[in-house]
Amino acid sequence: MTDKPQTAEPAWVASLSGLHDQVWQRLVRGVADRRAPARHPTLATVGLDGGAEARTVVLRAVDRSAGTLEIHTDALSGKVAELQRQPRAALHVWDSRVRLQMRLRVTVAFLDTANRWQRIPPASRLAYGGEPAPGAPLRSPHDYRETTDPERFLVLCCTLQELDVLHLGGGGHRRARFDRVDDFIGVWLAP
Amino acid sequence: MTDKPQTAEPAWVASLSGLHDQVWQRLVRGVADRRAPARHPTLATVGLDGGAEARTVVLRAVDRSAGTLEIHTDALSGKVAELQRQPRAALHVWDSRVRLQMRLRVTVAFLDTANRWQRIPPASRLAYGGEPAPGAPLRSPHDYRETTDPERFLVLCCTLQELDVLHLGGGGHRRARFDRVDDFIGVWLAP
Repeated sequence: MTDKPQTAEPAWVASLSGLHDQVWQRLVRGVADRRAPARHPTLATVGLDGGAEARTVVLRAVDRSAGTLEIHTDALSGKVAELQRQPRAALHVWDSRVRLQMRLRVTVAFLDTANRWQRIPPASRLAYGGEPAPGAPLRSPHDYRETTDPERFLVLCCTLQELDVLHLGGGGHRRARFDRVDDFIGVWLAP
Repeated sequence: MTDKPQTAEPAWVASLSGLHDQVWQRLVRGVADRRAPARHPTLATVGLDGGAEARTVVLRAVDRSAGTLEIHTDALSGKVAELQRQPRAALHVWDSRVRLQMRLRVTVAFLDTANRWQRIPPASRLAYGGEPAPGAPLRSPHDYRETTDPERFLVLCCTLQELDVLHLGGGGHRRARFDRVDDFIGVWLAP
């Protein structure tokens, strides 16, 4: 990326722990604030044809101590079939205000959703259901019926394996990687 | 995605051709306007370990009649090695102002870059070079030297194979797919 930065460097880019903290602050804000960039990460998966796929998802929960992130989906959506075959996926957030790119390599597991359905607001339940299933061809956009189906509500638990962070600074770019196997201590990388 | 829409439906969501036009208008704007959402798509690839990868790129050119998009990169960046192994990738743009998600499935080829280097502004040439190579571990962020190297300037030509568009509207979501094999005529999909 070569577009020019607009602002001076914030203090948190100077240290690995500062960068790491900043990422988790942004992720936590994404759960709480629907206008925050981390509210809508891009989830990349390996498609059934072997190529890459990407789509926007909504970040529903994060747990820094466990290093996990939660996404909700319709069980019949294409990404579920893709993740069943290849659970290694990526979550991507680009926060233009702080010029910070967060690349999270994750492994995705499907959580037991018992007792969770009751906590989903009624209006949101329409995201889990519908006929025909997501991605099915329609003769007209009106040939689709909204339904809700608790059986199609699925929670994706994304366990962070590796975090690649890039800050585009005025005095130069900073990049670092944080690995689960090294307890997320972090190492600087060439940008 | 279940966050509630803010605005009424625009006229272009009513027809397949309207949706298709809107996507290309947004892509063209991304090339011209560095503040447009399509300026910075997310490029998803299949990583060397078989999992998915994603990172922000800068959209440099689009050609609607050919159905191609151009991205510039350092030849030593990780995505180049990934694309050499698996050229099927995805470009993703989420335009929150119009609540439009664009998912482009592409095949990526490497263009001959002779005569192109002269057109790259000097300040931008620093994106193609640097020692050590992108992603190499550093003891300190200062152990990195900026250099420019025309040999490391690479143009990725992304040929659109399939476009999956989703509009999150107040009266319901609209989704459609446009395939190269069908001359991008388009078909409605269940959202």
